[in-house]
Amino acid sequence: MDSLGIAIFGYGFIGRVHAYCHRNLTLFYDPPPLHTRLIGVCTSRPETARRAAADGGFEFGVTDPAEILSRDDVSVVHICTPNDSHYELVRAALQAGKHVYCDKPLTADLAEAEALAPHVETGPGRLGLTFNYRFLPATLRAKQLIEQGALGRIYSFRGAYLHAGYIDPARPFSWRLDRARGRGGALVDLGSHIIDLLQHLIGPFVEVNALTETFIRERPAPDDPSRMMPVEVDDVALLSVRTAGGALGHVEASRLATGTNDELRFEIHGATGALRFNLQDPNFLEFYDATASGESYGGSRGFTRLETVQRYESPAGFPGPKFAIGWLRAHMHCLWSFLQDIASGTETSANYAAGLAVERVMDAAYRSAESRRPVKIPLPA
Amino acid sequence: MDSLGIAIFGYGFIGRVHAYCHRNLTLFYDPPPLHTRLIGVCTSRPETARRAAADGGFEFGVTDPAEILSRDDVSVVHICTPNDSHYELVRAALQAGKHVYCDKPLTADLAEAEALAPHVETGPGRLGLTFNYRFLPATLRAKQLIEQGALGRIYSFRGAYLHAGYIDPARPFSWRLDRARGRGGALVDLGSHIIDLLQHLIGPFVEVNALTETFIRERPAPDDPSRMMPVEVDDVALLSVRTAGGALGHVEASRLATGTNDELRFEIHGATGALRFNLQDPNFLEFYDATASGESYGGSRGFTRLETVQRYESPAGFPGPKFAIGWLRAHMHCLWSFLQDIASGTETSANYAAGLAVERVMDAAYRSAESRRPVKIPLPA
Amino acid sequence: MDSLGIAIFGYGFIGRVHAYCHRNLTLFYDPPPLHTRLIGVCTSRPETARRAAADGGFEFGVTDPAEILSRDDVSVVHICTPNDSHYELVRAALQAGKHVYCDKPLTADLAEAEALAPHVETGPGRLGLTFNYRFLPATLRAKQLIEQGALGRIYSFRGAYLHAGYIDPARPFSWRLDRARGRGGALVDLGSHIIDLLQHLIGPFVEVNALTETFIRERPAPDDPSRMMPVEVDDVALLSVRTAGGALGHVEASRLATGTNDELRFEIHGATGALRFNLQDPNFLEFYDATASGESYGGSRGFTRLETVQRYESPAGFPGPKFAIGWLRAHMHCLWSFLQDIASGTETSANYAAGLAVERVMDAAYRSAESRRPVKIPLPA
Amino acid sequence: MDSLGIAIFGYGFIGRVHAYCHRNLTLFYDPPPLHTRLIGVCTSRPETARRAAADGGFEFGVTDPAEILSRDDVSVVHICTPNDSHYELVRAALQAGKHVYCDKPLTADLAEAEALAPHVETGPGRLGLTFNYRFLPATLRAKQLIEQGALGRIYSFRGAYLHAGYIDPARPFSWRLDRARGRGGALVDLGSHIIDLLQHLIGPFVEVNALTETFIRERPAPDDPSRMMPVEVDDVALLSVRTAGGALGHVEASRLATGTNDELRFEIHGATGALRFNLQDPNFLEFYDATASGESYGGSRGFTRLETVQRYESPAGFPGPKFAIGWLRAHMHCLWSFLQDIASGTETSANYAAGLAVERVMDAAYRSAESRRPVKIPLPA
Repeated sequence: MDSLGIAIFGYGFIGRVHAYCHRNLTLFYDPPPLHTRLIGVCTSRPETARRAAADGGFEFGVTDPAEILSRDDVSVVHICTPNDSHYELVRAALQAGKHVYCDKPLTADLAEAEALAPHVETGPGRLGLTFNYRFLPATLRAKQLIEQGALGRIYSFRGAYLHAGYIDPARPFSWRLDRARGRGGALVDLGSHIIDLLQHLIGPFVEVNALTETFIRERPAPDDPSRMMPVEVDDVALLSVRTAGGALGHVEASRLATGTNDELRFEIHGATGALRFNLQDPNFLEFYDATASGESYGGSRGFTRLETVQRYESPAGFPGPKFAIGWLRAHMHCLWSFLQDIASGTETSANYAAGLAVERVMDAAYRSAESRRPVKIPLPA
Repeated sequence: MDSLGIAIFGYGFIGRVHAYCHRNLTLFYDPPPLHTRLIGVCTSRPETARRAAADGGFEFGVTDPAEILSRDDVSVVHICTPNDSHYELVRAALQAGKHVYCDKPLTADLAEAEALAPHVETGPGRLGLTFNYRFLPATLRAKQLIEQGALGRIYSFRGAYLHAGYIDPARPFSWRLDRARGRGGALVDLGSHIIDLLQHLIGPFVEVNALTETFIRERPAPDDPSRMMPVEVDDVALLSVRTAGGALGHVEASRLATGTNDELRFEIHGATGALRFNLQDPNFLEFYDATASGESYGGSRGFTRLETVQRYESPAGFPGPKFAIGWLRAHMHCLWSFLQDIASGTETSANYAAGLAVERVMDAAYRSAESRRPVKIPLPA
Repeated sequence: MDSLGIAIFGYGFIGRVHAYCHRNLTLFYDPPPLHTRLIGVCTSRPETARRAAADGGFEFGVTDPAEILSRDDVSVVHICTPNDSHYELVRAALQAGKHVYCDKPLTADLAEAEALAPHVETGPGRLGLTFNYRFLPATLRAKQLIEQGALGRIYSFRGAYLHAGYIDPARPFSWRLDRARGRGGALVDLGSHIIDLLQHLIGPFVEVNALTETFIRERPAPDDPSRMMPVEVDDVALLSVRTAGGALGHVEASRLATGTNDELRFEIHGATGALRFNLQDPNFLEFYDATASGESYGGSRGFTRLETVQRYESPAGFPGPKFAIGWLRAHMHCLWSFLQDIASGTETSANYAAGLAVERVMDAAYRSAESRRPVKIPLPA
Repeated sequence: MDSLGIAIFGYGFIGRVHAYCHRNLTLFYDPPPLHTRLIGVCTSRPETARRAAADGGFEFGVTDPAEILSRDDVSVVHICTPNDSHYELVRAALQAGKHVYCDKPLTADLAEAEALAPHVETGPGRLGLTFNYRFLPATLRAKQLIEQGALGRIYSFRGAYLHAGYIDPARPFSWRLDRARGRGGALVDLGSHIIDLLQHLIGPFVEVNALTETFIRERPAPDDPSRMMPVEVDDVALLSVRTAGGALGHVEASRLATGTNDELRFEIHGATGALRFNLQDPNFLEFYDATASGESYGGSRGFTRLETVQRYESPAGFPGPKFAIGWLRAHMHCLWSFLQDIASGTETSANYAAGLAVERVMDAAYRSAESRRPVKIPLPA
C-alpha cells in the first residue's frame, strides 16, 4: 500500500506533536484516510536536525528547506516554525506542489495571509491548519448542535483562551515575546485559537473593539539574565465583538491568567439553547435546551453534560469512546481531517479561509486597541 | 381568620429552626395551609425558658410540659428535645389530643417506635417528622422521576450523610455522644436522614450488613476538660443494604468525614436512568436519561443538572424560583407539608411509617454491626 | 429594650424580602445590633397597603409617604419602589431625619445620585443600599483576601450577572422594560450589582467601553397581549473596563442568558493569586495561591474551594456555619451591616459613595454604547 | 544504542494500547529508561496475527507462544490475553528468562497467583503489571501526600470503578461474562483496579464483606442472538472492608452504573486531611488540609484542586505539564515504571506483590458473597 511522504519544518514542541500524530495514525484510525511515512525534518542547525530525525523517526534531518521541497517522495510539508516564517514556507511549499499543513496562525499578519490567496487557489496542493480545537468530540458536537438550530438565534457569548505561563517576571524573553517575530502576543498565540473556534461555531465577526495591555514590560535576556529586554507584545487582550448574525460577545486571550493551565472555554446563549465548554473538562460539552419542559421542581431544564468523551465518528476509534480524552487527541483528529481532504477532497474545515478569517479579526483588534475605536471587519467576498 | 396555636418542646438549635419556620410561614406561602401562632415554649430551666420565649417570639416559656399539654389554645406540639425523651413526649402529646411534629429520629429505639403505634392510630392528632431532606425541590423532583419510571429497575445506589464536626478530639463530650441518651452516634444523627431519604425514593431496605467504628474513644468532659469520658457511640457507620426491589447499595454516616460540611448525597443507577444529588450543591438534581440518543459525538446523553433551585409547586413561592436555595428552606417546606396534612388530610410523606421504617433499619444495622452478620428487616405489614 | 421603628415604601417582591429580614433579625443575630419593629408599609393603593400590612406583619398600611415620614416612631425608611421614585423618596426621608435603606440602584440616573449628596452629608440619617452580594461569606472573604494582598497586582478580571427571565418574547412589558421608568435594562437591573461588587473588590473603574443590544424589541402590553409595546432598554450590556489600578476586565449583564437562573459571577487574576465565585455555587469561594509550591505532580497549586458556606463573623450565626447558604441570607446580613452603621457608626460598605460610583459607571457605559467610544470615568474627589 | 526486543501476546484493545506505548516511548521520555523495539506479536489465528503485526508495527506475527519465547532477541513479553491464560503464559515466559509485563488481573484466581511466587522470585526476569491508575500525576501525588502524613490516621474511604457498558441486555455474551474464563465479572474486571489503587494508597485490606449480584442473567450468544446464554458472573460487587490500619471503607465495582463512562474514583478521610479523585476529571487531585486556618468566613479551609494535569517528574514530559491528560497517558507511564525497573532495579510499584494482594481480596470477596459472612484476609508474610 502506498504511503504519503511527510516532512516537518521545525521540530520544537509542536513539531514533535505533529510527528506523534503520524506515528500513531494507523492505531487511531483503522484504516486511516491515507497511510503516511515520516521522511524528513528540517531545523535551523545540523545538530538539532540530527536529533530531531532520531527522536521523531524521520529518515533524515536537514537545515535547508529546499532540500526537502525538491524531493519527489515528500508529498506533505508541515510548517511548525515561528510565525514570521510561515508565509515564505507555505508559499514555497505550495509552489513546489506540496500539500501544506501549517501550524496556526496562518501568517505573521493579514497582508501575508492575503498574499497567499493565489497560491492556495491554484493548487494542486491542499492547505490545512492546526486549528485543533475544532476537532474535539465536544466541539464537533457543538458545531452539530448549532447547525441543527438547537440554539436558535444567538444573542451573546463569552470566549477565552487563558494561560498563566508568563506570570513569572523572571521568565526569559523569547521569540513569542518579540514583536519583530510575531506582531503580537497573547492575542496571536492564544487568541487565534479561540477566535477561530468561535467564528467556526457562530459565524464571522464583523466588528471588534479591543483593549490590550503589556503588564510585564521587560524580561531577562535568555542568554544573560542580568540584561533586561523590552516586551512590546500584549500579555492580555480583551475583545468585544459583534458577529454577522448580530450576536454580541466578549473574547479574551491572556498569558497572565493566574490559576489556569491551558483553558480554552466558551459559553454561547441563544434564543432556544445554550452551550458551555472548558478544555480543562474536555470530556463533556454542556448543552441547555430551553425548549425542554420547565414544570414542577424545575421540570427537565438544565445543562446536560453531554458525554462526548472520545466519541469520534471516525472508524475504529482508539483508545475507545469511553476513555478520558487528552489534549493530544484533537491534534490527531485535526490531521485526520486534513488527510481526508487530500484523500477524498472533503475539504477540512481548518482551511485557508479559516486562517484568513482569524487574521482579519486579529488585524482589526490590534488596530482597535491602538485607535481606541471599534473597527469593522469586512466579510469575505 | 383562626390560627393554630403552636408550642415547642426544647429550644436548642433545632427548636429555633422550628420557630423560624412559623415566623415566616405567611411570607413563604400565600396562603399557607393554616395560619399558626407561637404560643409556648418548654425548656429544662426557667431562665432558658424565658430567653427562648423572647428569642422565638412565644407568649410564654415554661419548664413543665404538662403546662402546655393541658392548654386548649395549643394545637400543635413540636418535639425538639434529645432523642431519649421523644417517646414519652410524643405519646403524652398525642394522648392530649395534640398534633405532633417531632424532630428525627422518631424515638430512641425500635421498641419505643413500635410502642407508639396505637397512639398514632387512634388520633385525632396527626404525627409529622422533620425528614426535611425530602422537601428540597431537588429531592421532590427525584421522587417524581422515580415514580414516573425514569430510572427503570434500580440496580445499585450509594448514599451518605457526612459531617466533620467531631474531627477535633478536643471537642467535649455531649448528649449526642452518650449512649445512654441516644443509643447511637453518626448512624442515628446523620444516618437516619439518608436512610429515610433513600427508603422514600427507592423503597424499603430488607437486609443490612453494617460496620461501625468509634475512632475517638474518649473526649473531655464538658465541665472539666481534664477529665476524659468514654465515647461508646459510632463515629462512622457503613451499611451494605438490599432493597425490597432487589437493588444493592452502600449507605454511610460519618461525623469524621474530613473536608465535608453538611454533605448528604446519593447516586442511584437504574436500567434506564440515574440520579445524583449533593446537599452542597442544593440547587440542582442531576438526572441521566439512558434512553436518550447516543449517536455521534455522544449524542444527547449525559447528566442533566436539572435546575430545581427553589422551584416549589406550592403557592407563591418565596423568595422565588430562581434564587439559590439554602438549608433552611427545606425545613420550611417540611412544615408546610405537615400543616397540609392537618388542614386537608393529605398525609405528609414524613409520617409515622417513615419514622418507624428508619428505626427498623437502624436497629438491624446495630445488630449486624455487633454480630458481624447480615440482618433481615421485616417489611411493614 | 428599645426598638427602632421600621417603615417600608413599596411591597413587591423586594419589599417582602426586607420585611423577612426584620422578622428574623433576632434569630439570626444574638444579639442584633439594634432591635427593630415593623410599623408601617406604604404602597400605591389602599387594598395593596392593607394586604401588605397583614402579610408582612406591619401595624398599618398607607398610600401616602407623608403619613409615614411625619411619624416620630418611624426611625428607618426602606425604599423598595421602582427606580424612578428613589431620588424623591430618599431625599424626603433624609430631610425628615430618617435613616434610609434603599434598594439598588441608588437613583434613576447619575444627576439624581449627585443631587443627593448634600442631603446625605448633612445627616443625621444614615443611608444604606442593598448591595447584598457584598454580604455573602464568600464575597466577604474575597474582600479580605484582596485587602491582605493575596492576589498581588490585579491584571485582569471577568464579571457577569446573568438572568434568563426575559428569554420568552411573550413575557409582557413591565416597568423594568420601560425606559421612562428606569433609564436602562439589564445594565441597571443586574449590571449595577456586579459593577458594585467588582468596584468594591478591586477598585473604581476609570474607563468603560460598552456595547448594548435590545434583541427583543417589542413585547405584549400587560393588560392586552394583542397590543405590542416597544422595548427600548438593553437586554444585554457588555462592558470593557479599566480600573484605577490598571487592571483590564470584561463585565456583562444579560437578561437573555439562556441556561442561567440567577448567576452573578466573577474571576480575578492577579500577579500572585486568583479568585472565582459563582452565585449558583454560593457556599464556596475559589482561591488560587500562585505562591504555593508547584513541585512534583503539581505540588500544592490549585484552586481551593474555600468553604465559606454560612461562616459569618457576626455573633451567634443562624442557622449555623455548616449549613448551605441561600440567597436570602445575604440580604439579612446587608441589613445587619446597615443596622451596625446606625448603632455604632461603623459605616456600612454599601453606602452612598458605593451607590454613586455605580451610577457613574452606568452613566459612562450608556454614553459609550451610544457614541461607540471609550468614556472616562472621573474618580471621586 | 541497544534496544530491548518486545513481544506482545494478545492483540485486542489492550494489546494495541501496549503497542502504542512502545511506539511513543522516545517522544514521551527523553531519554526513556531503555529503548525498545516491537518484534513479535502472538494471537490465536494466523490472519489476526498478520493483521496485528501490520497494525502495531511488529516484525512478525505468530500463533504459537513458543515461537516467541524461544527467541533470544525478545527480552520482554507482554501478556494481553484473557485472564485464564495469564498463569501459564507468565510462568512460561519467566521460565524462559523473559521480563513479563502482564495485564491485570495477575491470574484467574488466587491459587494461580500464589503458584507464580517461586517463578517470580528466582528471576532473572522482572514482572510488572498494568495497574495503570497508579501512574496518573493525580494518583502519584495522592501517594506522596499520604506518605508525607498529610491525611493523618485514615478513618474511612470510598472507592469505586463504574462502567455502564453492559447496561444493554442485548449486548452479547463474551469471555468477560464467562465464569469458566474469568471466575468473576465486574469485581475482576474493574474491581481489581480500584482494589489495587486503594491498597497502594492506604494499605492492605484485612477483612472484607461482600455482596454481589447478577442482574442480567442471560444474554444472547455472540453468534446467534436468538440463543440466550446464562450469565453467572457479577454485574455489581459491593465490598465493605477494613484496612490493616483500622480504616473502614466501601469499595464497589459495577458494569451497570448508568451514567458513567469510565469512572474510577476514591475519597479518603483522615484525621488531618482528605483526598478525592475521579477519572472523569483526571487533571486534578482534590486535597483538603484540615490543619489549615478555619477563621473568619471559612478562612483557608477547603478542597484544593491540585493541578496535577500532566506534571510527571520524569524527564522531558510530553506533551507538557499543562496539557489535559488522557487515559492513554497513564499506561505510558506504567510502562515507563516497568522499564525503569528493568533498567535500574528500582522496582515498579505495580509488581507481583501488588497483583497477589488484589487476588487475595477478590478471593475473600467472592467467598464472603457466597457465605454472607465477613472473611479475613491474611497479611502478606
